[in-house]
Amino acid sequence: MVIVLKKDISDSDKNSLKDFLAQKNFKLNEVSGEEETILAAVGKMHMDPVELETKPGVSRVIPISKPYKQASREFKRENTIVEIPNCRGQVIRVGGQRVVAIAGPCAVESREQIFEVAGAVASSGASMLRGRAYKPRSSPYAYQGMGEEGLKLLREAGDKFGLPVVTEIVSGELIPLMSDYVDVFQIGSRNMQDFDLLKKVGATGKPVILKRGYTATLEEFLMSAEYLLASGTENVILCERGIRTFEHSTRNTLDLSAIPVLRRLTHLPIIVDPSHALGQRDLVPPMGLAAIASGADGIMVDVHSAPEKALAGGAASILP
Amino acid sequence: MVIVLKKDISDSDKNSLKDFLAQKNFKLNEVSGEEETILAAVGKMHMDPVELETKPGVSRVIPISKPYKQASREFKRENTIVEIPNCRGQVIRVGGQRVVAIAGPCAVESREQIFEVAGAVASSGASMLRGRAYKPRSSPYAYQGMGEEGLKLLREAGDKFGLPVVTEIVSGELIPLMSDYVDVFQIGSRNMQDFDLLKKVGATGKPVILKRGYTATLEEFLMSAEYLLASGTENVILCERGIRTFEHSTRNTLDLSAIPVLRRLTHLPIIVDPSHALGQRDLVPPMGLAAIASGADGIMVDVHSAPEKALAGGAASILP
Amino acid sequence: MVIVLKKDISDSDKNSLKDFLAQKNFKLNEVSGEEETILAAVGKMHMDPVELETKPGVSRVIPISKPYKQASREFKRENTIVEIPNCRGQVIRVGGQRVVAIAGPCAVESREQIFEVAGAVASSGASMLRGRAYKPRSSPYAYQGMGEEGLKLLREAGDKFGLPVVTEIVSGELIPLMSDYVDVFQIGSRNMQDFDLLKKVGATGKPVILKRGYTATLEEFLMSAEYLLASGTENVILCERGIRTFEHSTRNTLDLSAIPVLRRLTHLPIIVDPSHALGQRDLVPPMGLAAIASGADGIMVDVHSAPEKALAGGAASILP
Amino acid sequence: MVIVLKKDISDSDKNSLKDFLAQKNFKLNEVSGEEETILAAVGKMHMDPVELETKPGVSRVIPISKPYKQASREFKRENTIVEIPNCRGQVIRVGGQRVVAIAGPCAVESREQIFEVAGAVASSGASMLRGRAYKPRSSPYAYQGMGEEGLKLLREAGDKFGLPVVTEIVSGELIPLMSDYVDVFQIGSRNMQDFDLLKKVGATGKPVILKRGYTATLEEFLMSAEYLLASGTENVILCERGIRTFEHSTRNTLDLSAIPVLRRLTHLPIIVDPSHALGQRDLVPPMGLAAIASGADGIMVDVHSAPEKALAGGAASILP
Repeated sequence: MVIVLKKDISDSDKNSLKDFLAQKNFKLNEVSGEEETILAAVGKMHMDPVELETKPGVSRVIPISKPYKQASREFKRENTIVEIPNCRGQVIRVGGQRVVAIAGPCAVESREQIFEVAGAVASSGASMLRGRAYKPRSSPYAYQGMGEEGLKLLREAGDKFGLPVVTEIVSGELIPLMSDYVDVFQIGSRNMQDFDLLKKVGATGKPVILKRGYTATLEEFLMSAEYLLASGTENVILCERGIRTFEHSTRNTLDLSAIPVLRRLTHLPIIVDPSHALGQRDLVPPMGLAAIASGADGIMVDVHSAPEKALAGGAASILP
Repeated sequence: MVIVLKKDISDSDKNSLKDFLAQKNFKLNEVSGEEETILAAVGKMHMDPVELETKPGVSRVIPISKPYKQASREFKRENTIVEIPNCRGQVIRVGGQRVVAIAGPCAVESREQIFEVAGAVASSGASMLRGRAYKPRSSPYAYQGMGEEGLKLLREAGDKFGLPVVTEIVSGELIPLMSDYVDVFQIGSRNMQDFDLLKKVGATGKPVILKRGYTATLEEFLMSAEYLLASGTENVILCERGIRTFEHSTRNTLDLSAIPVLRRLTHLPIIVDPSHALGQRDLVPPMGLAAIASGADGIMVDVHSAPEKALAGGAASILP
Repeated sequence: MVIVLKKDISDSDKNSLKDFLAQKNFKLNEVSGEEETILAAVGKMHMDPVELETKPGVSRVIPISKPYKQASREFKRENTIVEIPNCRGQVIRVGGQRVVAIAGPCAVESREQIFEVAGAVASSGASMLRGRAYKPRSSPYAYQGMGEEGLKLLREAGDKFGLPVVTEIVSGELIPLMSDYVDVFQIGSRNMQDFDLLKKVGATGKPVILKRGYTATLEEFLMSAEYLLASGTENVILCERGIRTFEHSTRNTLDLSAIPVLRRLTHLPIIVDPSHALGQRDLVPPMGLAAIASGADGIMVDVHSAPEKALAGGAASILP
Repeated sequence: MVIVLKKDISDSDKNSLKDFLAQKNFKLNEVSGEEETILAAVGKMHMDPVELETKPGVSRVIPISKPYKQASREFKRENTIVEIPNCRGQVIRVGGQRVVAIAGPCAVESREQIFEVAGAVASSGASMLRGRAYKPRSSPYAYQGMGEEGLKLLREAGDKFGLPVVTEIVSGELIPLMSDYVDVFQIGSRNMQDFDLLKKVGATGKPVILKRGYTATLEEFLMSAEYLLASGTENVILCERGIRTFEHSTRNTLDLSAIPVLRRLTHLPIIVDPSHALGQRDLVPPMGLAAIASGADGIMVDVHSAPEKALAGGAASILP
């Protein structure tokens, strides 16, 4: 942590700041120059920069160490591989050598739909089936999903085609019900900082796909992963899905440079969902390919908005 | 709703699109030009633009009508005034003639702290006391608040000084417990799109201060208000608190133009929290004043980060 | 400057880094902790952080001192007041006690128009007349302004009503021509980082209104002011006019917190143009007031998009 | 163009609006519903939406047709291939079957440097040599480049290795001087909306690499290309180089979805510069690959910040 002092800081303010930090076991080192005075503070404790910045004579606080621990590459050198067994005793590995494709409709709508899609994605080489039974909708008047009936259909379809199932959880209260049907919980972009939900889902120990908030920095993203890890699961898969920017020709801007940056910062597997960022069917195949080229461990595609073509053009053609 | 057709749309695709819309009771009108063909569709039903954009031959869908109803100025012409009684039988009115100040510490930390602050803010002219007992923290290792003990202290301090109390709710499960202590629920910026929480808090019928997600558009903000209104409360107060932009000299960018824009779009009262956007004590007084000049019904200030001065310089000096 | 070293930096890399910095006369101080090693470097020289970050073993470089000098509050404690004489021997002071209003049409369109507007703004209390003769247009097919004829009309109208004139310059080649007609050059938002233009306009010594690039950080804004100051003028007026964000209900987001932040960083006067950020007539009066409440030295309004009302409601009513 | 009318528009305002549009040869069609009234206007003329939005009774104007013409895919169906001959009579084609690599140092610094780099990039398979002789610097005190001496060295190095040379132009006045040395002009991100420069460079007829402003929408990007095309050159190469977002772990966010979106909108070739967006050497190879996977016609890499590895890992390995 680096603390930049105001030029006119009084000696007593400076001393009381130093005492405060010494009490928290920070090693201090002061460097004075003509233009600025810096206090370098090295210690183990996590301090809220804002708390320090309100102290008299402090101009700015620059955190150096990362606020997340278990999610960091320093905590665990080798890549985490999340293993998800299917009903046939096979194991899907996310984070290993093979690029994984997770596919399915945005929402489960009917038995016909989910079985048809599940069959199609299985034969295209997808490894997992996704589909929402509970949809987080920005309008209270919009369709909110099939609920438990949708979960049952998803489970049945997954079992028929040997695909583990992934579905979104929007409320901690649903955990007991959903746990019976679901192999992997998905936490959606809007809920990435619903810390209460993170704690409860993490406590189940089940694998989780954590979607990046569409306005979350990578540090915030990893802090939410830290919540999951600290709550009891080791099986967290990060999912980049686009961020909100000024550019409106696509719904969001897919941030593919996040893949190599995250790779450096964390040991967790990273997948990309190009469907939601783009909102346009014909953009999914090139961006699915680009995601894989940038180093992603897998892609998640919405086969409603980008059917066979997405998988064929995107992941499957690259899979060995 | 305006549907821009692709130049090369086939007649059969165009006809099936028209049939689809006619079934949903849309009045249609086609305008063809050399450069483009537009289908204007006017109807009552809310359609998801994405659903239409995936139909063959459709280039773009532009929604015209607002997706929120009860929150809109069209639904209710006159301004909503949210009335909050204090323990002395007086009523605080948010949205009326007087600018209201809501003040208190970021978090309740001790009996001494909350009583001292409550006394100070009461004598500075504040109308309500705020303070968190449950803090949403981006780090799982950070202090998460005093919990129920904090609620009790807040209630006691509010009652002593005649101030209704406002506190943040982070989980629907806490509603029964919190309802005993709290006059106004606050839904924080990170939870603005936690639709499950919105529905549950709305169902209590209690007044709610809804903070704008720091990356939410005004339309998304009003849609979240719509969730509250549609769930059973009429007493929703909107709170602008800064948005995330590329500018990093302040923590967020306070979007004061949101005040007159929201005023036009909605009948709900609008307050501003300058403390969290700015993160710097000396910026709060000028921006509090600017908020009031832009037409806000009140300001909410963090007296920990901007004490007596904030109130004195900000709201109180302007109050009659 | 703070240099965060990689954990695995070799001794030889560390030593060659220290030698490099010592040669540039930086005082160095190393602080090692369990989690990180920091090299604090204090010196006078401006180093490009990117150059250092490419050196082996360097993880991150955090600049501490400001890259601008003459524009900084440290360089000059007291506020700069830019003085602009009118044709009657009176002097308009920007940055002093009085809030200044600069008003006029977006573009000069005809003799009738500019005289009518000039008369109206003069009688509403405005201190200067603005209007473009050369319009920077994003379309090559759009009207590009009246050119020299527009400059003449602007000059005549200004002289008739005792208003100094402000107009935008888009090319360094126009300086000799424009200098005869213009009291204050305006550098537009899109040209804020046209360094070649900044140098040439700065060299004229004339007062300049520098508009913030709609996507410029405050540091970049002050660096462009530094170009003007370093090229020969002391009379630079900063103008906040809105930044590009994800929010699209207004054309741009007026960043009023920039006013108190800039006030702290620089001695230069600061005005606000609410017209261009908002793009909607009825938002100008409340935001003009809010700009003044936030501490602006003046406002610049477009009377075409927000006529008498803007001035009456905005600045004039507040002026003594 | 779609014009949304206010609910309470008067008949006389509506009629005068219709007359105004009819005079401009717009075909009109009015669609009235319970919630809104829409005026669909189809015509050839380009209207500034803001001009219409200031008319009484108009709520919103939504442009439908694209404001650029010559840059659009509708204007020219087949892809433009920009042909650049080298000194050996060979022709480099940008926009054809082969992915092209343009490489070189950020700035020309010395004879040794540019010859060494040119040799390295030529043997790695690069097709063109880049390097700045004039650097646009945000600080007036920073090194501004070697000037004409740098141009000479670049030309010599390019000729020795059979590489056409690309360099940035920052001022229209330099055109006569630079034209003698340069094969392809580059217009930098900060100058993308320097319309005066665009017109002058376009008038030379030389090939131009137009970098996307780091805060420009794709529509603005294409409008700047339109300036070049309308001024006399047919040889415009678009270059995505990252946009400014809230995410600060990379300098900018590389917007790779821009590639397939631009491909749909325009016939012009599109290349990607991953070096400047990322600012970190080890991110360039994965993102160079991702750029090509997304459909780019070429990549431009800074061999100073990402030497042999970038080319080897990026383009060359993919080139046949």
